Amino acid sequence: MRYKLTIEYDGSAFVGWQVQNNGRSVQGVLEDAVESVCGVSARVHGAGRTDTGVHASGQVAHVDLASALPPSTLLRALNARLPEDVALHAVEEVEQDFHARFSASSRMYRYTIAHHRCALLRSTRWMLYGNVDHAAIAQAVRILNGAHDFTGFSKFSPELEHAWCYVFDARWESDGATSVFTIRANRFLHGMVRALVGGLVAVGRGKSSPADFEQILNARDRARTPMLAPPQGLVLTAVAYDAGERALVREQMRILGASADE
Amino acid sequence: MRYKLTIEYDGSAFVGWQVQNNGRSVQGVLEDAVESVCGVSARVHGAGRTDTGVHASGQVAHVDLASALPPSTLLRALNARLPEDVALHAVEEVEQDFHARFSASSRMYRYTIAHHRCALLRSTRWMLYGNVDHAAIAQAVRILNGAHDFTGFSKFSPELEHAWCYVFDARWESDGATSVFTIRANRFLHGMVRALVGGLVAVGRGKSSPADFEQILNARDRARTPMLAPPQGLVLTAVAYDAGERALVREQMRILGASADE
Repeated sequence: MRYKLTIEYDGSAFVGWQVQNNGRSVQGVLEDAVESVCGVSARVHGAGRTDTGVHASGQVAHVDLASALPPSTLLRALNARLPEDVALHAVEEVEQDFHARFSASSRMYRYTIAHHRCALLRSTRWMLYGNVDHAAIAQAVRILNGAHDFTGFSKFSPELEHAWCYVFDARWESDGATSVFTIRANRFLHGMVRALVGGLVAVGRGKSSPADFEQILNARDRARTPMLAPPQGLVLTAVAYDAGERALVREQMRILGASADE
Repeated sequence: MRYKLTIEYDGSAFVGWQVQNNGRSVQGVLEDAVESVCGVSARVHGAGRTDTGVHASGQVAHVDLASALPPSTLLRALNARLPEDVALHAVEEVEQDFHARFSASSRMYRYTIAHHRCALLRSTRWMLYGNVDHAAIAQAVRILNGAHDFTGFSKFSPELEHAWCYVFDARWESDGATSVFTIRANRFLHGMVRALVGGLVAVGRGKSSPADFEQILNARDRARTPMLAPPQGLVLTAVAYDAGERALVREQMRILGASADE
């Protein structure tokens, strides 16, 4: 039986989503919980591999289990065994052809900046002082919609065939005290949201212009990648599995001669 | 020169507001910061003495300093010396007759309950599972408005002359996933908000009725005090210094034959 899991986690004390031999991973603690409940080890496949210190409120994963447990039983049993910085929100039975990563049509990330010192929310904010030109940032953000090669806003990943991503929606919202950057795309490259936020903040501080930002995008040159914003402001908020979105991305990638799959 | 400070803190790693000889207090780290900036020790007087593990987003304090530093300079200098779980939001010069505690006309507290497991906000929520009758709770909350003797919802405090408090506003708001209890009163007794939340949750779970809740209030009997809700859901959000509020409370207390001062 294949199960879909929807997961929230505080990334502060994790090396990231993916199991690694140098520390505690979200995938690792989930697999430990599954083994504790079912008595056998099983791989938990995630939709997005969040980096060290990056959070999630809506990560999605799937796992195959021999025992057919009711989803509500599995939800309670796993939550009882998970550490307090991971919360399983939902367990659903899915078809065997559902794959958390490869069936996903889009991921949504949110990056939050506090323009003042904060204490209660310090683990989910980048504290950034000084004046920021939000209108200039909003102008740069508008450039992101649609299909782009994001080489200039990513870290090198040897397994990547191409760097084209289709951005469904990107926006910058600010009330002056707190700014929120949200972006939904079919996929994200390694370090992409943090590099985008780094580039946008450079625009907001007047160190570069929206035109410079567009040039970094068009240059596709990793030597020009902006400083990455720190990880704690970033949250993977949702993963969508939508046939319409997938068809749209597939058509866009066909026009560009690129592969639609991650 | 007397300065008014507006302070946010994450109470998780503090024994509470007040300096104690058994651990780290918010008052203590503020006084350390003041001494580090000014070179002399000075008492920092707070408006509300929050308990171990209780947070604040709008605590107010005052401090007297011999050196007349511009408030903006003092704000930056103190923040640079405060630990990351304390954030100073504002520093203002005030008159010598301003007293953070005795001039305050009302305090506002917020208690937040998550009706599901959560990870990112776990340090500021009481996680409470199972069905809750929000209509019954809202009925009990309406009883709280106005002047009441809150003996039945407090821990014993030897220095207290009387237990009358004037509640300006109390409300329960819930979207089913998260419930928020907010209460604004001229003053609060030791453990009062947590005892009220404990009593309200008993009503919501059907263990008692709104009429039982009213009887606890009217009985003024500490033997009937409900179980205190855990501290991490509680935040001191604001302290007001309003002449109209003070006059209203003074008149109410005069009618009751009680003292208006804390």
